[in-house]
Amino acid sequence: MTYTQQMLDAYPGEINLDRKHLAAVIDALTACAQTCTACADACLSERAEDLPMLTRCIRDDLDCAAICATTAAVLSRHTGYAAALTRAQVQAAIQATKTCGDSCGEHADRHEHCRICARVCRETHDALNALLPALRPASGEEPPSQAAPQQRG
Amino acid sequence: MTYTQQMLDAYPGEINLDRKHLAAVIDALTACAQTCTACADACLSERAEDLPMLTRCIRDDLDCAAICATTAAVLSRHTGYAAALTRAQVQAAIQATKTCGDSCGEHADRHEHCRICARVCRETHDALNALLPALRPASGEEPPSQAAPQQRG
Amino acid sequence: MTYTQQMLDAYPGEINLDRKHLAAVIDALTACAQTCTACADACLSERAEDLPMLTRCIRDDLDCAAICATTAAVLSRHTGYAAALTRAQVQAAIQATKTCGDSCGEHADRHEHCRICARVCRETHDALNALLPALRPASGEEPPSQAAPQQRG
Amino acid sequence: MTYTQQMLDAYPGEINLDRKHLAAVIDALTACAQTCTACADACLSERAEDLPMLTRCIRDDLDCAAICATTAAVLSRHTGYAAALTRAQVQAAIQATKTCGDSCGEHADRHEHCRICARVCRETHDALNALLPALRPASGEEPPSQAAPQQRG
Repeated sequence: MTYTQQMLDAYPGEINLDRKHLAAVIDALTACAQTCTACADACLSERAEDLPMLTRCIRDDLDCAAICATTAAVLSRHTGYAAALTRAQVQAAIQATKTCGDSCGEHADRHEHCRICARVCRETHDALNALLPALRPASGEEPPSQAAPQQRG
Repeated sequence: MTYTQQMLDAYPGEINLDRKHLAAVIDALTACAQTCTACADACLSERAEDLPMLTRCIRDDLDCAAICATTAAVLSRHTGYAAALTRAQVQAAIQATKTCGDSCGEHADRHEHCRICARVCRETHDALNALLPALRPASGEEPPSQAAPQQRG
Repeated sequence: MTYTQQMLDAYPGEINLDRKHLAAVIDALTACAQTCTACADACLSERAEDLPMLTRCIRDDLDCAAICATTAAVLSRHTGYAAALTRAQVQAAIQATKTCGDSCGEHADRHEHCRICARVCRETHDALNALLPALRPASGEEPPSQAAPQQRG
Repeated sequence: MTYTQQMLDAYPGEINLDRKHLAAVIDALTACAQTCTACADACLSERAEDLPMLTRCIRDDLDCAAICATTAAVLSRHTGYAAALTRAQVQAAIQATKTCGDSCGEHADRHEHCRICARVCRETHDALNALLPALRPASGEEPPSQAAPQQRG
């Protein structure tokens, strides 16, 4: 069991999502951010004549790394009461993993790091798509004046 | 003239956006990220009896800070050729600044830092909304195989 | 084998560190960043009367999360030729995991999430300390004019 | 007056540092992070034959951007009671701005974006060095059991 899952199990408040599913998505996002950061750096270490065709891949890697890391942090605050924000950020991550997965996929037969990165992006993309339908408040977005899920003493 | 504007003026490639407008949006996002980080910390320093009603504001501050910082980085790679990704992330920031601006707005008459933060969120929200229509590729999203905007020797 | 390890194995350049060891440290940092983010949020969901004594823990969690994430990114660019920078950031992470581990450790018997977080901080602290001696350039810090580890065509 | 300064003026707790000085350092770090992100992207848009000699600069830009952003966030939580952590992170930023300023400085006569970035790195480096002596707890590092600077009701 990952620490992400252990921390969700130890969470003192309510979570409007399946904790095991949520943990798997957060772990996928964290792994994807790390892989994209590593892929950008590996691209920069490729042969000089390959660099020009890798600049787009490097940029998509950097965008995808930043977006996945932020999405993991937002989901770790699993604020069911701010579902509109969470949904919008998850949708950005769905797009980023699609764009980066496609970019890396183009170089997959030439560069092993791009092959691995394309696979991680697609797995994360699928995990996010599977989570999206669950990111709905029970009865419409609650206004901010409603209490956050505070445990009562 | 901010460094952001100076750097965009020195950019060697093409940018499909008005550089002055883009610089203003990036600077707004950077200021908003900073303000939200500061507001979360200021909330934590409020009186013990005020803390329970500020936990939602703290979470929205942290989400908004992370999302604005990531959006600023994505826009700094102003990849007109990856407009779908950029649009999705900008839309997440539009939602985050709305959510956080509303949260802070509720405490604006009680806490000066929330009043300032709500204002910065709304200014950033408006700046992002004004940029959104420009984030369209000239003729449909280009496939990743098309060259990145590389300067020719 | 984690994706981090797979990506290091696929790295086309030279790495002046044991790749398996480096992968383990990066994975520890990533897990620690995630755990600290989750612990800060879990603290915010504790009972109202517990919040005042948890504000320091929340701040240390947020600092440690940011520092560990940045350190993981810096190590993922495993630039042996910029050892001074890497060392300084690793030393900041050693301090952050110490500070946060101590903070969370104080609440370990009361809050399960703090108990887990203290453990992860200490494991990461130990992993960083074990890596530190290896972060030395072979023969003094090389000047920036020396070539980066670019693969030759 | 920047929002950073306004937020520090509105801070409800005690700050063991001169607020105007602290605001200036945070603003320098934020500008430096933004400039380094922009410089990395500008380097990627340079001519194909220039790319190989810019890969080190790109990596130093990315490291410096991440480290400055994290240091700004840590200083925004200006936790005088965790001075050891703050000092260590500020020292990492001092090293990162030195390394990156030197890297960019090498290309300053050839690339305008590197010239600007080198200047911002050096300004930030000097600002951090000037802050460092103030980052000392009044009487030794306080143990974590001491109360955080909570406003009393």
